[in-house]
Amino acid sequence: MRFPRTYTLKEIAEIIGSEFVGPSDFPVLGMNEIHVVEPGEIVFVDHPKYYDKALKSKASVVLINKDVECPEGKALLISEEPFSDFNKLTHFFKPFQSSGASISETAEIGEGTVIQPNCFIGNNVKIGKNCLIHANVTINDNCIVGDEVIIHSGTVLGSDAFYYKKRPEGFEKLLSGGRVIVEDKVEIGASCTIDRGVTGDTTIGEDSKLDNQIQVGHDTLIGKKCLIASHTGIAGCVVIEDEVTLWGQVGIISGITIGKGAVVYAQSGVAGSLEAGKTYFGSPAAEARVKMKELAMIKNIPSIWDKIKGK
Amino acid sequence: MRFPRTYTLKEIAEIIGSEFVGPSDFPVLGMNEIHVVEPGEIVFVDHPKYYDKALKSKASVVLINKDVECPEGKALLISEEPFSDFNKLTHFFKPFQSSGASISETAEIGEGTVIQPNCFIGNNVKIGKNCLIHANVTINDNCIVGDEVIIHSGTVLGSDAFYYKKRPEGFEKLLSGGRVIVEDKVEIGASCTIDRGVTGDTTIGEDSKLDNQIQVGHDTLIGKKCLIASHTGIAGCVVIEDEVTLWGQVGIISGITIGKGAVVYAQSGVAGSLEAGKTYFGSPAAEARVKMKELAMIKNIPSIWDKIKGK
Amino acid sequence: MRFPRTYTLKEIAEIIGSEFVGPSDFPVLGMNEIHVVEPGEIVFVDHPKYYDKALKSKASVVLINKDVECPEGKALLISEEPFSDFNKLTHFFKPFQSSGASISETAEIGEGTVIQPNCFIGNNVKIGKNCLIHANVTINDNCIVGDEVIIHSGTVLGSDAFYYKKRPEGFEKLLSGGRVIVEDKVEIGASCTIDRGVTGDTTIGEDSKLDNQIQVGHDTLIGKKCLIASHTGIAGCVVIEDEVTLWGQVGIISGITIGKGAVVYAQSGVAGSLEAGKTYFGSPAAEARVKMKELAMIKNIPSIWDKIKGK
Repeated sequence: MRFPRTYTLKEIAEIIGSEFVGPSDFPVLGMNEIHVVEPGEIVFVDHPKYYDKALKSKASVVLINKDVECPEGKALLISEEPFSDFNKLTHFFKPFQSSGASISETAEIGEGTVIQPNCFIGNNVKIGKNCLIHANVTINDNCIVGDEVIIHSGTVLGSDAFYYKKRPEGFEKLLSGGRVIVEDKVEIGASCTIDRGVTGDTTIGEDSKLDNQIQVGHDTLIGKKCLIASHTGIAGCVVIEDEVTLWGQVGIISGITIGKGAVVYAQSGVAGSLEAGKTYFGSPAAEARVKMKELAMIKNIPSIWDKIKGK
Repeated sequence: MRFPRTYTLKEIAEIIGSEFVGPSDFPVLGMNEIHVVEPGEIVFVDHPKYYDKALKSKASVVLINKDVECPEGKALLISEEPFSDFNKLTHFFKPFQSSGASISETAEIGEGTVIQPNCFIGNNVKIGKNCLIHANVTINDNCIVGDEVIIHSGTVLGSDAFYYKKRPEGFEKLLSGGRVIVEDKVEIGASCTIDRGVTGDTTIGEDSKLDNQIQVGHDTLIGKKCLIASHTGIAGCVVIEDEVTLWGQVGIISGITIGKGAVVYAQSGVAGSLEAGKTYFGSPAAEARVKMKELAMIKNIPSIWDKIKGK
Repeated sequence: MRFPRTYTLKEIAEIIGSEFVGPSDFPVLGMNEIHVVEPGEIVFVDHPKYYDKALKSKASVVLINKDVECPEGKALLISEEPFSDFNKLTHFFKPFQSSGASISETAEIGEGTVIQPNCFIGNNVKIGKNCLIHANVTINDNCIVGDEVIIHSGTVLGSDAFYYKKRPEGFEKLLSGGRVIVEDKVEIGASCTIDRGVTGDTTIGEDSKLDNQIQVGHDTLIGKKCLIASHTGIAGCVVIEDEVTLWGQVGIISGITIGKGAVVYAQSGVAGSLEAGKTYFGSPAAEARVKMKELAMIKNIPSIWDKIKGK
């Protein structure tokens, strides 16, 4: 998420009420998730396990709960509760705005685009040209839809990330202030749910096609020309490269990468990154030819058993 | 389901046209499902296998298709078709009422609660304070939502139980007259479906968090501070105790209990009750460490096979 | 899909700009999918592997990308791109029509049918008598719903087939011009998605009952008195015969047949046709008793392993 203007480190520290390490006029351009953060942006980290990763990331400002040495050319925001203070920033820059109208006055809708009845189009949504948005679709605030996109009924763009921190008094929610970006020529089936980024974007790449009832988590990047079949669930912060095919009811764990052109068979459970260009199957997923051999082998157990017992 | 006033046994017998055993002025307070029935209420039973369970339950009145001995302090309704006669009572006390308005005049909505566009809020629904109900949500008749609840777009509260009796002439549906209760601080993701109770309540406990596209069956009780990931399906009459975590695409069979603090890994299929405090995996689900060993062992089959053949 | 009148072969060839083989006044009644095509109708075929099947089908006209010998009593349309030219016909006979109203003026709704708020009912939809259509349901153009049907909130009838042809410049979509037919006494749960046929019909047979969040692909035929539990996904062109039971989270591959009265246990993955009257389990699914033995056998591997190692 880019801020509406460049803020200074001091201004940001004042918003969240924290100390800072670095020049008070150090420029801060925005805030983001660690797997996609860019120079000028803030990331947060509150677990020692990830300190190093955050400090060495592309982020220029690290919101952290320890007074560590500040890396060269960067700045720190020192806070007891980076999680809560990151929420303060999200709330400051992207507060939830209720909408009186089914189609917000601040939504921009391109020429030739058809919006069927009973849709909700939120604040600052941009939809390109020659799209077809079927009835009963929900496109929440700030989402961006390209040209020649088709979205089927019941689909929701821009629901919140499923991300909580356990506190003694109950769960604290990580606020979502990011967007969903749907690139040109994408088609999304009926009753899909695409969560928006926490501060970054959830992206469906150009010409990718999603079947019905697919779930895509926050800050996930789906490449171009992917095919994803129904009931597949993709967790948050996943990177799916171009031309990947996921068959039905596949589940994908958060934070992994699926290489270009990989194919994952139906009902597989992907628990780690997958190399490009190969075909996978099973839960947990392995290369399909290995898994198929394994399944064939299981059928041999009775005769193994008989041999063993026969001795 | 509690009746609007105390009825007499005779009055109830007249509604369904059945005989009764017990004092004609025996007080009847309501009707309920057997796993949550309370004194004063009716349960029904039509299969000899469950007679004993029904007669020994907390129910004060048993609607039954056999002239059994009446337990001390209880009453019986004797009927050839308890299933159909239970439906008569549901229809009498909770007939379906159509709604002209998107937000029923009889719905009560608390202070500070935001209802986004295109929602349906049915008759006698109560929503607490400071809730956020996103666009295109459906909350059917009689559902109760607490304070500080968030419900995302496309979600449906109060669809009917999936429960039919096979008759020679076709399926007879068990009517749903119960409610969905969503307690304080719950968050429910996008496009979830929560069936209402048949005559009791389907409950989502305080501070529990549901991801997108989750299915919860009728009369299921979800405890407090549970986390449930997307595409998980929970059948009817399940008891999920507090602080349970269910990862994505888990399936849970009807009528079982999942103990406090249990964790179930993604894509598991739970076919029986699970003890508290443990971690489970697989379909059918077993303790994760046992299941993991099993998966590792399967990889040994080829070398076992080679050894056997080598002899 | 039947055309509004009988067309001549020559007229059809002119619409798509192709050559034809056969009498120019050869009567053409409609177009259809190969597994349900009837005499008088067109099918298309563009892969040599399926030429024979198409030429020997019941179709009277074959749209094909090779100048083959014309079977007796039939006609051919010769085209370089049968896929694209089939789309031209779909577009000609069933162009998408946008809808200004939530309930189209051309929709017919039977006596005693209740349509709850916020539904979308498209052009030329026909709904029978005494149906209950809950809030936020979408019924797209040309769908046909019988009598005494119940459809729960969030469900979508008539989304498009998930069917694309890979071209160097991107995916070409196979247009959907077909219908969804819901027969009498069917009940469909909340947030189901039923794709319409490409040119034929997707059919849910009389008295069948679908739970929530079920996906049914294009041109699939579900028989009478079937029971299908939640989160089950059925691909396109599947034939499910009468009285089949599918438990929760089952996945079914395209183009297969599930025999009458078959039962498929939860989370199974059906990758081939299943015989009638049997019970199945697993992914890939096999007869349940075989699969159960297999699962029991896997538990023996550790003792097999110990014996082998002990030698």
